Amino acid sequence: MSEIYKGNKEYFPGIGKIKFEGRGSDNPLAFKFYDENKVIAGKTMKEHLRFAVAYWHTFCADGSDPFGNGTIVHPWKNAEEKADAAFEFITKVGAPYYCFHDIDASPDADSVTEYEANYKKTTELLLERQKATGVKLLWNTANAFSHPRYMNGASTNPDFRILARAAAQIKASLDANVILGGENYVFWGGREGYTSLLNTNMKKELEHMAQFLTLARDYGRKIGFKGTFLIEPKPMEPSKHQYDVDSATVIGFLKEHGLEKDFKLNIEANHATLAGHSFDHELRVAADAGLLGSVDANIGDPQNGWDTDQFPTNVYDALKAMMVIMDNGGLGSGGLNFDAKVRRNSTDLEDLFHAHIGGMDTFALALEVTDKINQDGKLAAMLDKRYESFNTGKGLEFEQGKMTLEDLRDFAAADAPVPQISGKQEMIENMLNRYMFG
Amino acid sequence: MSEIYKGNKEYFPGIGKIKFEGRGSDNPLAFKFYDENKVIAGKTMKEHLRFAVAYWHTFCADGSDPFGNGTIVHPWKNAEEKADAAFEFITKVGAPYYCFHDIDASPDADSVTEYEANYKKTTELLLERQKATGVKLLWNTANAFSHPRYMNGASTNPDFRILARAAAQIKASLDANVILGGENYVFWGGREGYTSLLNTNMKKELEHMAQFLTLARDYGRKIGFKGTFLIEPKPMEPSKHQYDVDSATVIGFLKEHGLEKDFKLNIEANHATLAGHSFDHELRVAADAGLLGSVDANIGDPQNGWDTDQFPTNVYDALKAMMVIMDNGGLGSGGLNFDAKVRRNSTDLEDLFHAHIGGMDTFALALEVTDKINQDGKLAAMLDKRYESFNTGKGLEFEQGKMTLEDLRDFAAADAPVPQISGKQEMIENMLNRYMFG
Amino acid sequence: MSEIYKGNKEYFPGIGKIKFEGRGSDNPLAFKFYDENKVIAGKTMKEHLRFAVAYWHTFCADGSDPFGNGTIVHPWKNAEEKADAAFEFITKVGAPYYCFHDIDASPDADSVTEYEANYKKTTELLLERQKATGVKLLWNTANAFSHPRYMNGASTNPDFRILARAAAQIKASLDANVILGGENYVFWGGREGYTSLLNTNMKKELEHMAQFLTLARDYGRKIGFKGTFLIEPKPMEPSKHQYDVDSATVIGFLKEHGLEKDFKLNIEANHATLAGHSFDHELRVAADAGLLGSVDANIGDPQNGWDTDQFPTNVYDALKAMMVIMDNGGLGSGGLNFDAKVRRNSTDLEDLFHAHIGGMDTFALALEVTDKINQDGKLAAMLDKRYESFNTGKGLEFEQGKMTLEDLRDFAAADAPVPQISGKQEMIENMLNRYMFG
Amino acid sequence: MSEIYKGNKEYFPGIGKIKFEGRGSDNPLAFKFYDENKVIAGKTMKEHLRFAVAYWHTFCADGSDPFGNGTIVHPWKNAEEKADAAFEFITKVGAPYYCFHDIDASPDADSVTEYEANYKKTTELLLERQKATGVKLLWNTANAFSHPRYMNGASTNPDFRILARAAAQIKASLDANVILGGENYVFWGGREGYTSLLNTNMKKELEHMAQFLTLARDYGRKIGFKGTFLIEPKPMEPSKHQYDVDSATVIGFLKEHGLEKDFKLNIEANHATLAGHSFDHELRVAADAGLLGSVDANIGDPQNGWDTDQFPTNVYDALKAMMVIMDNGGLGSGGLNFDAKVRRNSTDLEDLFHAHIGGMDTFALALEVTDKINQDGKLAAMLDKRYESFNTGKGLEFEQGKMTLEDLRDFAAADAPVPQISGKQEMIENMLNRYMFG
Repeated sequence: MSEIYKGNKEYFPGIGKIKFEGRGSDNPLAFKFYDENKVIAGKTMKEHLRFAVAYWHTFCADGSDPFGNGTIVHPWKNAEEKADAAFEFITKVGAPYYCFHDIDASPDADSVTEYEANYKKTTELLLERQKATGVKLLWNTANAFSHPRYMNGASTNPDFRILARAAAQIKASLDANVILGGENYVFWGGREGYTSLLNTNMKKELEHMAQFLTLARDYGRKIGFKGTFLIEPKPMEPSKHQYDVDSATVIGFLKEHGLEKDFKLNIEANHATLAGHSFDHELRVAADAGLLGSVDANIGDPQNGWDTDQFPTNVYDALKAMMVIMDNGGLGSGGLNFDAKVRRNSTDLEDLFHAHIGGMDTFALALEVTDKINQDGKLAAMLDKRYESFNTGKGLEFEQGKMTLEDLRDFAAADAPVPQISGKQEMIENMLNRYMFG
Repeated sequence: MSEIYKGNKEYFPGIGKIKFEGRGSDNPLAFKFYDENKVIAGKTMKEHLRFAVAYWHTFCADGSDPFGNGTIVHPWKNAEEKADAAFEFITKVGAPYYCFHDIDASPDADSVTEYEANYKKTTELLLERQKATGVKLLWNTANAFSHPRYMNGASTNPDFRILARAAAQIKASLDANVILGGENYVFWGGREGYTSLLNTNMKKELEHMAQFLTLARDYGRKIGFKGTFLIEPKPMEPSKHQYDVDSATVIGFLKEHGLEKDFKLNIEANHATLAGHSFDHELRVAADAGLLGSVDANIGDPQNGWDTDQFPTNVYDALKAMMVIMDNGGLGSGGLNFDAKVRRNSTDLEDLFHAHIGGMDTFALALEVTDKINQDGKLAAMLDKRYESFNTGKGLEFEQGKMTLEDLRDFAAADAPVPQISGKQEMIENMLNRYMFG
Repeated sequence: MSEIYKGNKEYFPGIGKIKFEGRGSDNPLAFKFYDENKVIAGKTMKEHLRFAVAYWHTFCADGSDPFGNGTIVHPWKNAEEKADAAFEFITKVGAPYYCFHDIDASPDADSVTEYEANYKKTTELLLERQKATGVKLLWNTANAFSHPRYMNGASTNPDFRILARAAAQIKASLDANVILGGENYVFWGGREGYTSLLNTNMKKELEHMAQFLTLARDYGRKIGFKGTFLIEPKPMEPSKHQYDVDSATVIGFLKEHGLEKDFKLNIEANHATLAGHSFDHELRVAADAGLLGSVDANIGDPQNGWDTDQFPTNVYDALKAMMVIMDNGGLGSGGLNFDAKVRRNSTDLEDLFHAHIGGMDTFALALEVTDKINQDGKLAAMLDKRYESFNTGKGLEFEQGKMTLEDLRDFAAADAPVPQISGKQEMIENMLNRYMFG
Repeated sequence: MSEIYKGNKEYFPGIGKIKFEGRGSDNPLAFKFYDENKVIAGKTMKEHLRFAVAYWHTFCADGSDPFGNGTIVHPWKNAEEKADAAFEFITKVGAPYYCFHDIDASPDADSVTEYEANYKKTTELLLERQKATGVKLLWNTANAFSHPRYMNGASTNPDFRILARAAAQIKASLDANVILGGENYVFWGGREGYTSLLNTNMKKELEHMAQFLTLARDYGRKIGFKGTFLIEPKPMEPSKHQYDVDSATVIGFLKEHGLEKDFKLNIEANHATLAGHSFDHELRVAADAGLLGSVDANIGDPQNGWDTDQFPTNVYDALKAMMVIMDNGGLGSGGLNFDAKVRRNSTDLEDLFHAHIGGMDTFALALEVTDKINQDGKLAAMLDKRYESFNTGKGLEFEQGKMTLEDLRDFAAADAPVPQISGKQEMIENMLNRYMFG
């Protein structure tokens, strides 16, 4: 396998394989923190972080927004050139994985058969390049939200014919996944929601969504997909309300419909914050349910109320995320996918490298600090101590279901006054800064 | 039973029983829309709306806020005077129900036995006045969030002793409920959440909460409580994050822990909006799960990010709520409780009447418009028509679980292009205005 | 002048002139409240409300959003057909005004001279249709934000060449305005702001903006533009931060740079709410400064943090706006422009009519209620009374600048305790509902 | 002067003078980054940062919130004990300044003369302790928002008598300031705003506020106050809307009323974010106007919509703030005041030390990184280069006012196509991380 993939043309000339140069380096095109072979807690950074490049943002997004046309000009023109550019970029930046939507990589078509034929050809293109490089597919997904036909939803569309049309895309995407050896398969319900409750039968739409996911699961398993199905929560945008609001909502839905054995969650940082939660909260909710599947690593702008999909450069956010992920024993078959785009005015192709280098360095640093915290053990010890009253005596009996409400009342009535116990939040926040900067 | 309750002293002199005077009236102390005996869809307005007055806001809140001391001076001084004032007010405004926290009505005490003794005496006071007036208890609850001991939570406190102390309050409150014939019992987890994830074991805390609610349920049923247990969602405030975020989160929690047969939801409008949802969305989610229990009727300020608990005067919000409630077949044992307070600078005791009259008129008007919409039937017909493709043929087969993903794909591959079908949102919004103002 | 304009082809067949049918009508394609000739407070509804149709949303917007392609198919293909469709629509819906950006109506071009030539031709097309119909131009503006060249700003671009390129568009748009008899000229700074402060010299950019507006003002006056220049505030989107945040910010800027004699504000409802203000607050701030120029009448979604640009159907919002506007003596040369678009899934051309009918009816109803409030006079009297202590004695002396801080202190030291005076907010909110529904 | 102040009793026994121990230390009661005598860019850290302790949060706040009573028990009981505790704390933590509201330090009274007598006595207490320790007064202010009398505002109260009563407090506070050698005097308009526009004459209220500030300024100057008057912006809370929304609003107001020679701005981080701005944005706006006076250093919770007043521990925020402050040539007579409180459940007195140590270390680190950035010079050079087209030729002529709109148009018409110039945001964000962690 070649270190760097090159197709018929080099799309990022002048930029070679991005190297680790360490903290002292001021080379903007080098890693300062991400040393893929460095071993931390028994695994390499590469194995821990499982970075993936997102086809849509990195090779398709042109900087257009609701108020303006595209600003970024890509020198690749068709599916094959795009695949060449993609694998060149991925190997240069050194990410072990990539992710894509069907129509990111393969030309869309109104006709199902034409769409399938295109997809089949694209799958071959991608497979060849995977083999040539060792780059693997973290997940793929079907874009059932951009085409006008999905304006009223895909699996939740009031019109059965649209639902069926979406199924054709999911089927083809699962077929491609199996060929490409994808480790996960993702659903993001971009139009699974409503713009007005007044014209919506939410109950019926959610039942359709559950049935649809069940059929997809059954088909996937039938054709040999062994990976994890993932649902990606988001509370709104483009819809006024989207059904997969947040971790708790999706977990409730999965369990309601018996899908929790096959499905896990793909948590995106900016979707978490749009839902009014912190990124680590959403990860923690998923992890506590045993359903943390994968991560879309990005950040939002704290002053903007829409999905800005910025590259993650905030080490606090990344650190709190990595603390949950490490506590979860890692991400299993999941990874850290950069569902992030360069700003509309970051128009140099080189900016794609800066963006990924920054994101990878940020999580690498977060991983190192997390390991430092875990080695030190002080935070974990404080946390355990805080709950120690449940380890013995009546507290333990309560946990074991051996006390009634009356027993609790009697215990309280007999008990001496309880001293205030500080939560020590400020001290803990200082500790984080010490681990980060000390 | 007397029309208006009077204790030893009249607390609202100069204000008599509030009467219905109709739309033409400009008497600020009369109802313009709420005619309690008017029959709509087979029931009186009183039976539909089941209004309740909240003891805490109306008889306890003094206008204090984080930046200032109380502004509202209450002429009632002890539990008995407060009860007199409360029943005078409730009978003058003509609400059939009231709601209270333990320490709204009864003096708090550090000693469990003293607290219980106070509560017992208060329960007698309240029972007498219920009998004298026919006013009933919609629900009571225990305030396990204001006292400093609950600063780290009640049932989710890291210290077992505090959890037990909270149990004593819940037990006493259930005892009182049964004596007073309460129709529901509410839990609002004001400190069941966290201020920092870094010092919190969320999984353990949620398990404790589930176990605690289970014990409360078991005790209630044992002593003869036949009503509904209610959980009131709120996403944040006072905690940074509260566990009972929204309807979907609470429903998932109840089902996870086998509590959904005994517990339903008490939806508060301003909590819905703090969670990033519309009021009717939260009601609809609860109703669709068969778990809509009761309503805290208020509104927030759209520009303020905290719970302003304003009286509901927005007819759009009330109408959308009533449309869900009527579609749900009403609120069962629940009601519309005004969990709302007059503004800090609304310092006339008379303002309490304006506030409740406004809230009651708003929902009465909403009820009338809902009935008009239902009589007309056009909106319902449009909604049904929107989903008609699932009533027959392949759509029906899909709903019946008779199609695989491949079947759907084949159907789509064979199908003709599908025409765009407008959601007609603007037309529907115009219809609402016509029903309201036409 | 013909009642309804028709070009070579009828673009909205089956829909005639929209008529006023009154509150009882359930014809969705008729006005229920907007009776253009009805006289209120000495002027017709048409004269008060001065409705305008927005070229961009109504004749250009295709339903595309950041997550999907266009859904709405327009049967008009070139500038002339679009102008035909526009004037047919405007005359059918009965709006006296329209508004447009240069490239809404006229084909864009990279070459300045080609762009100007196109614009000149389009101006002739529009002028002909204005003459044929009596429809007038409320305002036009230049789109200096959509083209990639403006990704770093127009008048605030760090590159002088882009600033100059924007000037060419403004010049041409002012030329067109004078030919078409435009009553105002608008600036909306879509990219006048930043995506990161770290690469921005805000002070320099704001000075450039001021200088640029000064040059535009000078040129406009030189060529005979007699109308009002308008700046439209918006706090963010598409930029992370936009310089024209809100009314207060823009007023400060105009006065700082001596522009307040020629410029006023164009207030948009949804921009107000994105800035954390209510619509009526922004109108009031502008009116109090004597700088309320015109209004972009729309609403946002209270749960979504971006500009949803929905048609205004909320009568509360419209009422509070009309109360300020009437108090301001109307909008002068300004009007109510529907800067609003139908939802992405409102794909019937007929939906454009529903949307405008709803918006026009909403403001007509608001106008009627405002007049009722003004006739009644109670609210105004309450407001006057609240401040009466400044009408005489020491309060008046304070207002007249005759008291020092020591005088105030001495007055307070001598004064008797001051009674609490209720703000009566709940009573006033009830009064609004009575005026609306009574 | 003694290193540590001790009154009759030691209030923080077991905690001595907090020392700098450097990055390697894991002593939670030592500084890791704040080395007060370390010289950076020609001044000591102490001189740069000018830290102040806030009397209200640190010595008065008891952890109460809208949902619960106080949790934090202070062993100091009266004004003298509180002053002892305060100066002990301030000297132990090593802050050179403190700040206070009148009634933080001195007992309130309804009678003006009694209030003044109390204040006089307290001023003596404070002066003694200032002399004994060398601790100085950064600023004081009058609390004209907590007392019920101010529920409708202070200088903007509709009742002149209340306005006069507020004047008595401001006069006394200015008197105290001059005696104590305060370097600034602050106005925060906690109730200068409205809860409803419907009962408010905003124009009149703002004129009253301007007149009131003018009188305060005149009195201050008359009695020899040489420092800076400061206004602290906040957009809402406790009022629905507060008049001093943000930097731009206050700057416009000051200039409108001729107050900009005497008044500057006191920018609070959490107020900035409540206004929808970043902290550094607000600082930058003030600095660009030459009106950056002082800073209330805290942070908010990104998921909570109210003022959480948390201690600043986020180094990104502090760094971006320090970059503006250093670029402004420092804060002049202003300082960094910790307007921040420990969490309600941080009930150990020791937590006050953790909190301040964390805040001081955070800004010290930010100062060091800022200096590193400035030494390196790369960011500044990139910024200059971005605007270089205005340094010569036509760009310069534009800046000098030598070009008309027509000249700009002609330049653009003649010019060659302009290449896209990337904003390089991702690269710059990576650079920040490198300066921080490299």
